[in-house]
Amino acid sequence: MNNQKTAAVLLIGDELLSGRTRDINLQTIATFLAPLGIQVAEARIVSDTENQIIAALNQLREQFDYVFTTGGIGPTHDDITADCVAKAFGDHIDVRPDALDLLTEHYSLTGIEFTKPRKRMARIPDSASLIKNPVSTAPGFQIGNVFVMAGVPSIVRGMLEDVGWRLESGAVVQSATLRIKGAREGSLAEKLGEIAKAYPDLSVGSYPWYGSPEDTGVHIVIRGIDEALMEQAVTDASAMVSEAGLIAERLSVD
Amino acid sequence: MNNQKTAAVLLIGDELLSGRTRDINLQTIATFLAPLGIQVAEARIVSDTENQIIAALNQLREQFDYVFTTGGIGPTHDDITADCVAKAFGDHIDVRPDALDLLTEHYSLTGIEFTKPRKRMARIPDSASLIKNPVSTAPGFQIGNVFVMAGVPSIVRGMLEDVGWRLESGAVVQSATLRIKGAREGSLAEKLGEIAKAYPDLSVGSYPWYGSPEDTGVHIVIRGIDEALMEQAVTDASAMVSEAGLIAERLSVD
Repeated sequence: MNNQKTAAVLLIGDELLSGRTRDINLQTIATFLAPLGIQVAEARIVSDTENQIIAALNQLREQFDYVFTTGGIGPTHDDITADCVAKAFGDHIDVRPDALDLLTEHYSLTGIEFTKPRKRMARIPDSASLIKNPVSTAPGFQIGNVFVMAGVPSIVRGMLEDVGWRLESGAVVQSATLRIKGAREGSLAEKLGEIAKAYPDLSVGSYPWYGSPEDTGVHIVIRGIDEALMEQAVTDASAMVSEAGLIAERLSVD
Repeated sequence: MNNQKTAAVLLIGDELLSGRTRDINLQTIATFLAPLGIQVAEARIVSDTENQIIAALNQLREQFDYVFTTGGIGPTHDDITADCVAKAFGDHIDVRPDALDLLTEHYSLTGIEFTKPRKRMARIPDSASLIKNPVSTAPGFQIGNVFVMAGVPSIVRGMLEDVGWRLESGAVVQSATLRIKGAREGSLAEKLGEIAKAYPDLSVGSYPWYGSPEDTGVHIVIRGIDEALMEQAVTDASAMVSEAGLIAERLSVD
């Protein structure tokens, strides 16, 4: 797997760990990065606690090409991400004029009072560059290989539009999915294992689904940089499924 | 926060990182543990890669009272969790008679062929104790403070029933949620920050929601072990909301 870029996602917020909120941002970020040839290789979820955020951030930014954080950059007392990121980088942080200007204009246009807590959203580390927020203006920021974004899903989607151009692309991973209705994982597993072994440069995954008792089956997902190789493995897997007396339907969208 | 028990959740599977699958197990585990006084303090998502699984597991089992893993204990070649856990603990692993007996009976009753890959699901570390799987029989297992479960959500829910009795309870965290329709985070933030400061033993969270333009607001979530203290903070927060000319509706289910 040469020329592959890797990323980590750091999701910040007590509400994700308590089960109050079910995260969707990891999926948004992963599917945004995939066509750029950047694979999410690890994700972590931590609470709004300084030590935890800094420790996770420093581990991840060492290990992966890029780190994307979500959450903790709003106006309330528990929004401590920006300050933690500054500490992790040993950078100075304060209300920054460029961010303050954006917010001043936004609140003047909307007629909402620009309170002191809202000014906290202009706290940006000195060496960071701002990430545009097309939804609610309060910016995210990039510092080194770390991209700091909001937690609200619509804002994350918006901010990614101002992130993509900053990323160095890697080799894009192609993928194909075969849907095999009525299959059982354990019945296909031996042959599928042989296919996986025959293609060490591809990743071959097997994912059972259980709908109603009549609606069960297995998805085989084959992924890799070399599209021709992937197609060869798809042909092998389809033949294996036919031999087992089942039908492999190739999905048009993976 | 004395006598609090902490847990980490380790979600294993390429499909979670690629965005193919959106995890639900973290939420299931967190809401199962909360009434037992066990707080999920960190979660990690790693791919089906030996090094990653072992490294994460060894970090987490050192740091937290309990670790719960999901995924990677099925019959296919990419199901490597059990072997990784054995390695992390330096324990021997092979097909174990007690697990094999369970599976032999299951496949004999269902008339499904007990293939060689299915026998892999009986690979259990020597010193582990089995966790019952009421859905599809193939067991999970407990070794030390680590609980190894399947990835399929219905099986996770089933396995937890055989996990609860093994856990030492901590002090249960109580929580109250105030729903404030029409509120903006930045307008309440200053006063809310003062309340959070006045109650250092409680956690005070602020979570905006954005439905339609007419349906926005903020949830204030107050959590802590001391219920009387929590109620006092709820009273303070409600008064603060009234002073701001808004209505705080207390939700009966958080």
